[in-house]
Amino acid sequence: MDDLADLLVRLRSGLPAEAVITDPDITASYSHDMASFCEAGIPAVVVLPRSAEQVQHVMRTATELRVPVVPQGARTGLSGAANASDGCIVLSLTKMDRILEINPVDRIAVVEPGVINATLSRAVGEQGLYYPPDPSSWEMCTIGGNIGTASGGLCCVKYGVTAEYVLGLDVVLADGRLLTTGRRTAKGVAGYDLTRLFVGSEGSLGIVVKAVLALKPQPPRQLVLAAEFASAAAACDAVCRIMERGHTPSLLELMDGTTIRAVNAMANMGLPDTTEALLLAAFDTPDPTADLTAVGKLCAAAGATEVVPAEDAAESEMLLQARRLSLTALEAVKAATMIDDVCVPRSRLAALLEGTAAIAQKYDLTIGVCAHAGDGNTHPTVCFDPADPDESRRARESFDEIMALGLELGGTITGEHGVGVLKKEWLSRELGPVGLELQRGIKRTFDPLGLLNPGKLF
Amino acid sequence: MDDLADLLVRLRSGLPAEAVITDPDITASYSHDMASFCEAGIPAVVVLPRSAEQVQHVMRTATELRVPVVPQGARTGLSGAANASDGCIVLSLTKMDRILEINPVDRIAVVEPGVINATLSRAVGEQGLYYPPDPSSWEMCTIGGNIGTASGGLCCVKYGVTAEYVLGLDVVLADGRLLTTGRRTAKGVAGYDLTRLFVGSEGSLGIVVKAVLALKPQPPRQLVLAAEFASAAAACDAVCRIMERGHTPSLLELMDGTTIRAVNAMANMGLPDTTEALLLAAFDTPDPTADLTAVGKLCAAAGATEVVPAEDAAESEMLLQARRLSLTALEAVKAATMIDDVCVPRSRLAALLEGTAAIAQKYDLTIGVCAHAGDGNTHPTVCFDPADPDESRRARESFDEIMALGLELGGTITGEHGVGVLKKEWLSRELGPVGLELQRGIKRTFDPLGLLNPGKLF
Repeated sequence: MDDLADLLVRLRSGLPAEAVITDPDITASYSHDMASFCEAGIPAVVVLPRSAEQVQHVMRTATELRVPVVPQGARTGLSGAANASDGCIVLSLTKMDRILEINPVDRIAVVEPGVINATLSRAVGEQGLYYPPDPSSWEMCTIGGNIGTASGGLCCVKYGVTAEYVLGLDVVLADGRLLTTGRRTAKGVAGYDLTRLFVGSEGSLGIVVKAVLALKPQPPRQLVLAAEFASAAAACDAVCRIMERGHTPSLLELMDGTTIRAVNAMANMGLPDTTEALLLAAFDTPDPTADLTAVGKLCAAAGATEVVPAEDAAESEMLLQARRLSLTALEAVKAATMIDDVCVPRSRLAALLEGTAAIAQKYDLTIGVCAHAGDGNTHPTVCFDPADPDESRRARESFDEIMALGLELGGTITGEHGVGVLKKEWLSRELGPVGLELQRGIKRTFDPLGLLNPGKLF
Repeated sequence: MDDLADLLVRLRSGLPAEAVITDPDITASYSHDMASFCEAGIPAVVVLPRSAEQVQHVMRTATELRVPVVPQGARTGLSGAANASDGCIVLSLTKMDRILEINPVDRIAVVEPGVINATLSRAVGEQGLYYPPDPSSWEMCTIGGNIGTASGGLCCVKYGVTAEYVLGLDVVLADGRLLTTGRRTAKGVAGYDLTRLFVGSEGSLGIVVKAVLALKPQPPRQLVLAAEFASAAAACDAVCRIMERGHTPSLLELMDGTTIRAVNAMANMGLPDTTEALLLAAFDTPDPTADLTAVGKLCAAAGATEVVPAEDAAESEMLLQARRLSLTALEAVKAATMIDDVCVPRSRLAALLEGTAAIAQKYDLTIGVCAHAGDGNTHPTVCFDPADPDESRRARESFDEIMALGLELGGTITGEHGVGVLKKEWLSRELGPVGLELQRGIKRTFDPLGLLNPGKLF
């Protein structure tokens, strides 16, 4: 208790009173992200700094007293990367939420880490600009969290992931020093790419306090086509044909039969029960109608039973509704879900979907798959009841088996959700001993005392 | 000599005889890249392995005997990053030149490091695919060298640099172990991004022996517009207007008056002597004529004295000829050139060009600037006579002063050419002490004995 009292006195010496929270009812609410079934501890204190200097004070204090620090954004992550450890300082960046600059000539935005993704997207949109990364949680998640987890989204098939939009960072290191990485320029190769090293590092190398982000010009509104298939394999074949023919959709999403039925049950979308896969393709090109026609033909050639191109933005939105409801609908199946994030070369997508269906059958579980099909990035969602120990065990085993299948197919255990606590053991399988040793070496270089987000990644 | 004899015996124990070169006339030709005025030593031996296993043998030998290793591609670099140090092993990757796979569905190519950029570009082009990075030396330079220096090119304003196309690597570490990084998938966030760390690391962290590269579908052929301006500032204003209005040119290049006059003198391009800047814009969109018309109007609004849109591919090529000749023409001005590579936010491009003109005047030198204007990436080219000590001194001082100006304008000392030997002192100025310390920490993690390309970067 003396240690805690000392910690609080020191923290308060450089932070306003309201920025240091110790009420256990409140601190408990900071204990985990949306992977609520992953292990999580109780923080000693939650701090809510409003400036880089205050973050530096927190990190200097943590280093002096050897207290672990868990950085957090909006806690919408799905891998437990933001979960607290017992006795840690939770460092929430949500109060550092200013957009500092939007520059249409240089096509950059400069932001603090707590800015909500949707807030930034709308602000740049008002100036004719576009910040593409659009994770499903975009109305809640923060840019800092997006950087920490290298978030993806629906747009990635055309526009890539968060990593491709981070040009430079201000980072507070474990010992409280401030590091500036990268640039405000379109190009730059001065030294090792430390910026990219921080992206996806899940708060384990430093605390991002400012980011220079690249922006694109706002594209035309996208037009969507929906295609129904009698098998997942046929839909995957359509995906391969679309990409092989050189199309560049702004979105290419797939829902499997299990997901479709869950959505139908929830929202009565009127999809026939014989539909085993729904493919959604969109184009934000100058002539999207022509692109949809070409893609519609490829879907038909791959065996689509129905092809429905939207005629305008409103119809497009309707078609996307089903996809947007997918996770909610699957969450309604059982009390809990465990969301996998396996990404395979898109030529192996059919094998992954068929393998996942076999795993669901083997473990007698409902596993619905939605996928950013154009990227080969799938989200097999295992539905289970955490109160049922046997079902929980089967859920975890099936979850792991899907990752094993992903690796076997030449894929990765995580396309966009990150490792966190959930996939720690799997990271070492994917990286191998040499890769793991180097990753640990990098961690030691940045955080020799191991205070930053301990117990995550590896 | 005993040490050398021992080194050669050991190298030959795992390499075919013809892969180990000691003839001093030949080894001397491997002493430097195209920054021939940078310091360079004489290698003890040049090795030309043909497989990852042979590279592993070289690195194991080097580690056992503590001999430095300088990796080389085609030695077309401009910063001395491939320059030999005395007594080193030059490890040339030029014989590892196989394209292992081109996959149109997954849109990837898998290549060995010695593949020539143009060879890959043509091979993927035959399958309707596009490998964008196009450094000026693309007919000679290797993919391994491109990865080592994170090369750019003319296409970057739309398609980005080499870094954005490297998905995964096989790397032989300093101690001879093989590391696989990254992925074959479109997305992936499993652990720290080691792939990106190797890109631009100038052979100082490991030897790339295989790369998985992302490809794009081949775009339509681009159509080019040329616009003449009476001042560099007016041309830069046009660049800002084009980018601010949300255009996405596939190329946006600028030549200043000095460069134009050098090209005129060499090839009689018929450009009026009053032209102080030539802007070249290209579009590879479905309707490039419409884009050129819009951009032509923006150029006129910025004060262009002449706007010439090409009507077809042949005319477009003609317009690009002047740009292609720029460096050759500037090289004809004096016996030697020193090419800067400063990149600034494009809103500061005019300030950089005006500042460079003032520096040329101050030092009484010819400094021609061509620029990847859309990226704010300039190549001020200092023409000098290395036999004239005073002019050489002035050349070096002006070269440095341009870098100082670039940093002052919020830019970087190197947009795409890298640091090598040429900009070592400048790297620490750009990174600052904290950044430099971390960069050195990373170097130690990968190469604790400091054997890989010593004396480069920092």
